[in-house]
Amino acid sequence: MKSISLLGATGSIGLQTLDIVREHADEFEIVAFAAGKNIEKTKDIIREFKPKLVSVQLEKDAYTLSKEFSHIDFTYGTKGLVDVATFSEATVLLNAVLGSIGLEATLAAIREKKAIAIANKETLVTAGHLVMSEAKKYGAPILPVDSEHSALWQSMQGENRKSISRLILTASGGSFRDKTRKELENVTIKEALNHPNWSMGAKITIDSATLMNKGLEVIEAAVLYDMPYDKIDVLIHRESIIHSMVEYHDTSIMAQLGTPDMRTPIQYALSYPERLPRLAAERLDLAKIGQLHFENVDLNRFRCLDFAYQAGKMGGTILTVMNAANEAAVGAFLQGEIKFLEIEDIIEKMMNDHMNIQHPDLETILHVDKETRKTVQSMLK
Amino acid sequence: MKSISLLGATGSIGLQTLDIVREHADEFEIVAFAAGKNIEKTKDIIREFKPKLVSVQLEKDAYTLSKEFSHIDFTYGTKGLVDVATFSEATVLLNAVLGSIGLEATLAAIREKKAIAIANKETLVTAGHLVMSEAKKYGAPILPVDSEHSALWQSMQGENRKSISRLILTASGGSFRDKTRKELENVTIKEALNHPNWSMGAKITIDSATLMNKGLEVIEAAVLYDMPYDKIDVLIHRESIIHSMVEYHDTSIMAQLGTPDMRTPIQYALSYPERLPRLAAERLDLAKIGQLHFENVDLNRFRCLDFAYQAGKMGGTILTVMNAANEAAVGAFLQGEIKFLEIEDIIEKMMNDHMNIQHPDLETILHVDKETRKTVQSMLK
Repeated sequence: MKSISLLGATGSIGLQTLDIVREHADEFEIVAFAAGKNIEKTKDIIREFKPKLVSVQLEKDAYTLSKEFSHIDFTYGTKGLVDVATFSEATVLLNAVLGSIGLEATLAAIREKKAIAIANKETLVTAGHLVMSEAKKYGAPILPVDSEHSALWQSMQGENRKSISRLILTASGGSFRDKTRKELENVTIKEALNHPNWSMGAKITIDSATLMNKGLEVIEAAVLYDMPYDKIDVLIHRESIIHSMVEYHDTSIMAQLGTPDMRTPIQYALSYPERLPRLAAERLDLAKIGQLHFENVDLNRFRCLDFAYQAGKMGGTILTVMNAANEAAVGAFLQGEIKFLEIEDIIEKMMNDHMNIQHPDLETILHVDKETRKTVQSMLK
Repeated sequence: MKSISLLGATGSIGLQTLDIVREHADEFEIVAFAAGKNIEKTKDIIREFKPKLVSVQLEKDAYTLSKEFSHIDFTYGTKGLVDVATFSEATVLLNAVLGSIGLEATLAAIREKKAIAIANKETLVTAGHLVMSEAKKYGAPILPVDSEHSALWQSMQGENRKSISRLILTASGGSFRDKTRKELENVTIKEALNHPNWSMGAKITIDSATLMNKGLEVIEAAVLYDMPYDKIDVLIHRESIIHSMVEYHDTSIMAQLGTPDMRTPIQYALSYPERLPRLAAERLDLAKIGQLHFENVDLNRFRCLDFAYQAGKMGGTILTVMNAANEAAVGAFLQGEIKFLEIEDIIEKMMNDHMNIQHPDLETILHVDKETRKTVQSMLK
């Protein structure tokens, strides 16, 4: 039995994690979780999974809940995330919270030697150098949850990593993959949220349309697998069937394929090194799909991917700037405040204006993150 | 340094094995090899690779060669194959000889605890039960050389084999994949030998066109990986880029991809568990290829594949009958004695007429093999 603490329980990844725990009640239990402001959903999860510690975003919600569930401990806010992440009875943290608020909790859990199943991109994108060095120091395994990084990881099992010559991340191309830049000028929020393959949250769906999501994944892959950026390629693969690939120096390429179902990589992170059956899940039928397509990605068409390679190669606080500017800009787009292509313009401007600081500590990262969001907000007024 | 004895040195697999040994002269050496009647090629190989023991098919050739290369030991015939396979200085046998004459040599090498890199199909198809039980008894590793079995094997590295739910062998469909049965009636030898993807010997190219080659591979996969036949699928994949796949019970599919170059799986069998660089080899460019196609195989269209599933499920001497009838029929087709579709008719008749014997010993297998070929010959007169 693996005891899991889950951050972001009511989000897309969180709910799918609960599906897996439900499917394998004899293997996994949720001993602690953190949610945001969705209190009805939080109550449902408490009733079904019977955790011992629960965190919510607001103090008043924690208070209300503690009246209804008197045998459970409640906590809240940023400290609540750390409380859940470091809960003594958990051996695994699955961090599926959105944004940089997930960072401190990850680092705290690493210091408690928890295994970290990581679905919070900021952890590796903005603080990859801190996370990986702390993980090494404390012997905390970092387990990828993203389908692409899980595919890379699965394609490395039983292999000598020194034999790797290239990582190939596949990208569906998102909602607008067949549109020209001209056609992108006036796309709507609704169009942007209509992802062809994956059912995901709003922010990540927009990031898929700009390919910033793939850019963040390139950075995560570089950090997780200690690979130079010139050995990480992105390939447009519209069917999202090959989830990613690893090329070895004998020219062999190992790949992981499957239906687009996030629960499979979530489960793999939790069951690793074993695989557990997914009896009810849809099996991949390649004959039915018939064709798989591949094409090179155009960095002039998908400028956010170019930004990510640039920031990744530079390292330092520019990564935080890029990520925070993107989050703020995507938020503004989803609020109808800016046009789709202005997301890129905002990120570019923020990156150009930044004085890069190498090897930032957590405080510096959080400061730069906050300042960047503030500057983007002031630009929008 | 791995010391290799090589059976079938002047054949297609043999010559590609020598390419790999040449590329990695610091890793591999040929200490013994067996060839057939191509004496000029044999001399070239002796000069370049400086083996200590060489076998040829005919006694007179062995005698002639011993005059020219007085410091090398020569042997010949069936005994010569066993001499080379069991040569004391070799730690690995790569058996790439065609036909059932490879069988005794394989078993002899297993008893000497050599690692067996197996490209001789008869070894596993007709005597799989003997080979695998002897290999287990003597602790001799059986290493696949075929691109499909190598792909399956690579897709199992670091995995728990109990989690495998299905093996998926890919098949190019051979020279005639787009022809109807009607169109197959009058195809020529030249057309049959024109394989779309792979450069191979004549017999295996015909077997690719009938899909008997895939049938033999299904049987080999069942034997090598101890899988029931209802868990081994064949998928037509015309580009031969995904070399085969393993599905796990979490619905993940692991696959090995590459350019169609037999030297990569040959090298993997020799370098296992490590991979060695293949600097001069062509790397796979999926964007350039653009599309991969998949379709189910029609067992009424490709009757030989159906025969193989039937024989595999039955087990026993029927496997030898199917294989020997196929070899004899393909030989007759290549001699212009029969039409392409008569290959199937001959195999079917021989299988129908056979009284199956379960768990045959080597003597029985060799006897049935000989009798089947004799009967096919007499049918052709």
